[in-house]
Amino acid sequence: MIATRERAQRFLDLHHGPDVLVLPNAWDVASALLLCRQGFPAIATTSAGIAFSRGYVDGERISREEAMEAVRAMVAHVDVPVSADMEAGYGRDPAVVAETVRQAIGAGVVGGNLEDSSKGDEKDKGRPLFDLDFAVERCRAARAAADSCGIPFVLNARVDCYLCLGNGPQVAAAAIRRGNAYIEAGATCVFVPGVTSAEEIGLLAREIAAPLNVLAAPGIPTVQELAGLGVARLTLGSSLTRAAYSEAIRVARELRISGVFALPPGTITNRDLTQLLSEAAMRTPH
Amino acid sequence: MIATRERAQRFLDLHHGPDVLVLPNAWDVASALLLCRQGFPAIATTSAGIAFSRGYVDGERISREEAMEAVRAMVAHVDVPVSADMEAGYGRDPAVVAETVRQAIGAGVVGGNLEDSSKGDEKDKGRPLFDLDFAVERCRAARAAADSCGIPFVLNARVDCYLCLGNGPQVAAAAIRRGNAYIEAGATCVFVPGVTSAEEIGLLAREIAAPLNVLAAPGIPTVQELAGLGVARLTLGSSLTRAAYSEAIRVARELRISGVFALPPGTITNRDLTQLLSEAAMRTPH
Repeated sequence: MIATRERAQRFLDLHHGPDVLVLPNAWDVASALLLCRQGFPAIATTSAGIAFSRGYVDGERISREEAMEAVRAMVAHVDVPVSADMEAGYGRDPAVVAETVRQAIGAGVVGGNLEDSSKGDEKDKGRPLFDLDFAVERCRAARAAADSCGIPFVLNARVDCYLCLGNGPQVAAAAIRRGNAYIEAGATCVFVPGVTSAEEIGLLAREIAAPLNVLAAPGIPTVQELAGLGVARLTLGSSLTRAAYSEAIRVARELRISGVFALPPGTITNRDLTQLLSEAAMRTPH
Repeated sequence: MIATRERAQRFLDLHHGPDVLVLPNAWDVASALLLCRQGFPAIATTSAGIAFSRGYVDGERISREEAMEAVRAMVAHVDVPVSADMEAGYGRDPAVVAETVRQAIGAGVVGGNLEDSSKGDEKDKGRPLFDLDFAVERCRAARAAADSCGIPFVLNARVDCYLCLGNGPQVAAAAIRRGNAYIEAGATCVFVPGVTSAEEIGLLAREIAAPLNVLAAPGIPTVQELAGLGVARLTLGSSLTRAAYSEAIRVARELRISGVFALPPGTITNRDLTQLLSEAAMRTPH
């Protein structure tokens, strides 16, 4: 647990450095290892990428057990801090959220996302965004669970206002109110997906009293611009997973249509991947 | 088992059609589904791709159980025939090979590769290619196991001469001798990876008395040319998996270096993947 604590502290510090923490999202072991080799100081996981690769729609259709197993495998192979996409905690109740956080820490992660919208629980039909008080209670339970594990866990509270309510000034105000409430309840960082305009991102960064995480999407300002707007962290969601599948399909489609087999120059070789995986296996016997 | 038998027959027939059977290799559920959507009439799996994604070096470092689980998940989500990369059968002894074939059929596949080189078993140190008689015995065991399941299983006997011995006229002769011996022992198709010259491919196709499978690699003739040479089947090994990872890393590297987040035009959307996965889930409750 000492190693985990050190990694957690290292990860936490990255949220307060001079640069935007660009955190690419892995969906399996090889993608995690390859991203680490690019020099990213930490990585995150993507629940959508993990779900798709294993045959599920995103949104807690995968069991917590299988999701944790996927995260554990990634963590076991890399040296850098890993933040887990814990979705909405794999359950509505704060006690379930707490157990999910404990399991994630048990899997070796040092941070994780917690969403504030329902994944379709019967009780929440038609009301995807949790009541603020209830969402705060869930954050508090997550923080207490993390603290009981004795590590400075980076709880990344996701504010789903833009996903659930759309755009507009009221939405920004609601996101700010929620973000600040989650910080008071123990969140380390506030994640607001769905916002891409520089103006709104700047407003959120100014008004939310903790590091702000935004999601890369078409049209998002550059990393340098995000830094100027006060953003602390940029994650990519399922983008890399989707880029990966798209390229495989492009090569296959080209072969099917033209009869020509061609891999782009610089495609990773079998030898290279074998080397990468065997070095990782030497670090952590599998 | 009737559905499996019909799928097996359909798959077998594809080896005797007018066109080269281009069989792209999937490594997880989403890649399998996306390849099917491109209209390929059947797909194969790649042991290397499955291994990398789960944190292993290729070559039976993964347990047979985990390998079969990966294959089962793919089969459960697609409608087309699936051929499994069974490596060298996950064990040296013919009885183990037979059990692997039964398990693969149990997982729903209708064909599979069986290699004729050792995966590093103590007994085979420094002698990667199995003795021909022993390799024949293994093919016979695989065929008997498949027959006992009552389906026309497409046993794709892999001849590893080019991988183990390099190139040259003696190697082609050895590959032909082995290929024909495996056919007599019950193989349906002979897979010779490592050969890319039109001349040698033509020689193998003429001299091996069953459908010939070659492996796509840089410099391989086009599908039309392969058809002219008498090739029946083209597989891609881990190429698509490697193209996929390479593209994800390219996007991440670009973001890291330039600060600009950009996905290529036509990148599959979350909505599209969600739709694809949810349709598959409706077909086969997960």
